[in-house]
Amino acid sequence: QKKFKDPPPPMHVTSIVDGLKHLYMERVRPLESTYRFQDFVTPLLTDSDFNAKPMVMLLGQYSTGKTTFIHHILQRDYPGAHIGPEPTTDRFVVIMHGQDERSVPGNTIAVQADMPFNGLTKFGGSFLSKFECSQLTHPLLEHVTFVDTPGVLSGEKQRTQRSYDFTGVIQWFASKCDLVLLLFDPHKLDISDEFKRVIMALKGHDDKIRVVLNKAHQVDTQQLMRVYGALMWSLGKVLNTPEVVRVYIGSFHDREITPKDEMGKFLFEKEQNDLLADLKDIPRKSCDRKINEFVKRARAAIIHAYIIAHLKKQMPAMLGKAKAQEKLIDNLEEEFAKVQREHHLAAGDFPNVHIFRDTLEGYSIDKFEKLKPRLIQVVDEVLSKDIPDLLRKFRNPYDNL
Amino acid sequence: QKKFKDPPPPMHVTSIVDGLKHLYMERVRPLESTYRFQDFVTPLLTDSDFNAKPMVMLLGQYSTGKTTFIHHILQRDYPGAHIGPEPTTDRFVVIMHGQDERSVPGNTIAVQADMPFNGLTKFGGSFLSKFECSQLTHPLLEHVTFVDTPGVLSGEKQRTQRSYDFTGVIQWFASKCDLVLLLFDPHKLDISDEFKRVIMALKGHDDKIRVVLNKAHQVDTQQLMRVYGALMWSLGKVLNTPEVVRVYIGSFHDREITPKDEMGKFLFEKEQNDLLADLKDIPRKSCDRKINEFVKRARAAIIHAYIIAHLKKQMPAMLGKAKAQEKLIDNLEEEFAKVQREHHLAAGDFPNVHIFRDTLEGYSIDKFEKLKPRLIQVVDEVLSKDIPDLLRKFRNPYDNL
Ligand SMILES: Nc1ncnc2c1ncn2[C@@H]1O[C@H](COP(=O)(O)OP(=O)(O)OP(=O)(O)O)[C@@H](O)[C@H]1O
Ligand SMILES: Nc1ncnc2c1ncn2[C@@H]1O[C@H](COP(=O)(O)OP(=O)(O)OP(=O)(O)O)[C@@H](O)[C@H]1O
Ligand SMILES: [Mg+2]
Ligand SMILES: [Mg+2]
Repeated sequence: QKKFKDPPPPMHVTSIVDGLKHLYMERVRPLESTYRFQDFVTPLLTDSDFNAKPMVMLLGQYSTGKTTFIHHILQRDYPGAHIGPEPTTDRFVVIMHGQDERSVPGNTIAVQADMPFNGLTKFGGSFLSKFECSQLTHPLLEHVTFVDTPGVLSGEKQRTQRSYDFTGVIQWFASKCDLVLLLFDPHKLDISDEFKRVIMALKGHDDKIRVVLNKAHQVDTQQLMRVYGALMWSLGKVLNTPEVVRVYIGSFHDREITPKDEMGKFLFEKEQNDLLADLKDIPRKSCDRKINEFVKRARAAIIHAYIIAHLKKQMPAMLGKAKAQEKLIDNLEEEFAKVQREHHLAAGDFPNVHIFRDTLEGYSIDKFEKLKPRLIQVVDEVLSKDIPDLLRKFRNPYDNL
Repeated sequence: QKKFKDPPPPMHVTSIVDGLKHLYMERVRPLESTYRFQDFVTPLLTDSDFNAKPMVMLLGQYSTGKTTFIHHILQRDYPGAHIGPEPTTDRFVVIMHGQDERSVPGNTIAVQADMPFNGLTKFGGSFLSKFECSQLTHPLLEHVTFVDTPGVLSGEKQRTQRSYDFTGVIQWFASKCDLVLLLFDPHKLDISDEFKRVIMALKGHDDKIRVVLNKAHQVDTQQLMRVYGALMWSLGKVLNTPEVVRVYIGSFHDREITPKDEMGKFLFEKEQNDLLADLKDIPRKSCDRKINEFVKRARAAIIHAYIIAHLKKQMPAMLGKAKAQEKLIDNLEEEFAKVQREHHLAAGDFPNVHIFRDTLEGYSIDKFEKLKPRLIQVVDEVLSKDIPDLLRKFRNPYDNL
């Protein structure tokens, strides 16, 4: 009991994120693992998830300038970078800070406990052989990590030749990222079926998406307006949010760009500055986001515990367990409603009943844990007291920088 | 029989449109009226429908510059025009060519047989009192007629205070028009519920829609891109076609415009010229469209005749008529399928079965006409012979003008 009671000794906590890590490990994680939150909702977090730097992922058709964009931001190539008009980048490359300049293979990086990429092992060996970590020393990389990706292809054939779950990988990265940049160029506007699936896979992370209309200097003003309009027309339908996604129009490239007409002078520069400002703002936003996600996760863990404990309680002590389990699974909607009423919870906070049912079928409800009020009370206190305390004690280190 | 056999005497036909008029009156209309095409599908055409000049309708929120746009195109006010920052135009105004300059009230114009507005009487007296015809001499009006409309309002209250079917009127005009210009301005971008209903009512006339982003000089380039992007974002979802609607960005106003920055110089002028070219092209396109619609209509009339005659044929000679009618109406989908198979027609050419059913319920099927193959054969010949003959004899008078 003792270990849930004391707050983490104050001297060990050096920042908001460090505090969150302690609160999670000592107070939230026990609740999660007791009720198998990791099997039903999302994997348990590790130290490396808290230590990870904010990530920016670049997505787009081949040759839209993703690798060039990273080169432009860093003003240098990352180890293993390839740039060219044909499909060049053939793997997922994480570009991060490191003492030595080197390129680490995916199989190695995925098993390193101090790296936040353990979760990628589930995509199998054929993915890991197309995954790489490129390390270099760079002041920017001390604050942000980039993820370069292989171009999304349009041909069905090329897609089926991919030996791993491309959309799944994108989804995994999107959930870990702070920003997802979708790159288009005026000559590669069409949203292929695979690209559409990729964008759909970003659902739930809409607020992280920014669009870059790159190589804008290659067309004149009137054409650019057409191109930009067509892009918004189709993006609006694919993303299907009322809020308009932010599009940055420009040409992110080292070479001096010569716009077709005067417009570039007025527009591109401003837009490029806006995007850089947005990138610089990531660390600050990332800290806010971590707090926000922590709170959401803790709430979800409590609800999950209530559901599991409720199901367990309905099981008979002796006979008819199989039948009882079947009935519970069939009436899961009703059981959810009972939990909701009993604990005065919001229906919208509950997990998707279909996904939950699918997972549940692989388990024996009888083997679940009973309700342990103490575990829940501890997480309740984290939300009501520990987090506010933490925010009072530390400021977002990036505020007013 | 005789009157359906001879082609219209060649000396009476002076143009493609004139030829269409004769073909319709003498050969298609008899088929339509025999099987009550006008009650089920669309009113019979009159001479005035063929004589009418191409029409351009302007639609948009209040104060987006619709009346100013017409003023700018004509370089003068039309009789009865009002321009101002508050909602000014409170009625539908048809601006057309006329010997005397005057403003004719809606009630008068709607009953004139030589005017194509008879159909508007169905919207009732309270609409007609908000309808007006403004006549003046102007070289442009010899080729095109404009329709100015009251601004679409956003408040639900104001909408319900309209005493006539606004959307219905818009729909009526849209079906008669050659071009529908949707005006937006940077400060009036939102698509209110009423505006959405109005745009929905344009369904089926997507190819006539053009969008004008007016008063573009009021914002700077970067803002304009945002505004334009947001417009495309929401329009794409409302119109929901894969083809992107053409948007003209500019400021249609007599006063010399001073763009916020240099961009206007490059963009607005080109865009304004494009729009004017599009307007000038209307008469030529209108002739092509009339041929196209004539052919579509004649086909629809034949299918309609087959359906009605088929239903009639299923009726018993003596007893049980009410019951037979009920059964036919209930199984209308099946009856449509039978007609389709019997005459080798395309399912997509058939009318909407729900609307057809609703209309049919008001009729006694028994009173319909039997199949008259001769009537259908005549229209078949119009399609296979008379129209091609007509197109060989006359060129589109506006081609290569
Ligand atoms: N802003 C730009 N203006 C003009 N050319 C550009 C720009 N950005 C990139 N390019 C050119 O486009 C080509 C493709 O660039 P790059 O390899 O960076 O694209 P990519 O999106 O990484 O492609 P892939 O998906 O194949 O890895 C290269 O020839 C590069 O020089
Ligand atoms: N291109 C333009 N640039 C700047 N101001 C404009 C422009 N077009 C119109 N205006 C101004 O906007 C106001 C509204 O114009 P107007 O009356 O033509 O709009 P409207 O769409 O016809 O409005 P309503 O629906 O109320 O009839 C007027 O004050 C007019 O001077
Ligand atoms: Mg690349
Ligand atoms: Mg007006």
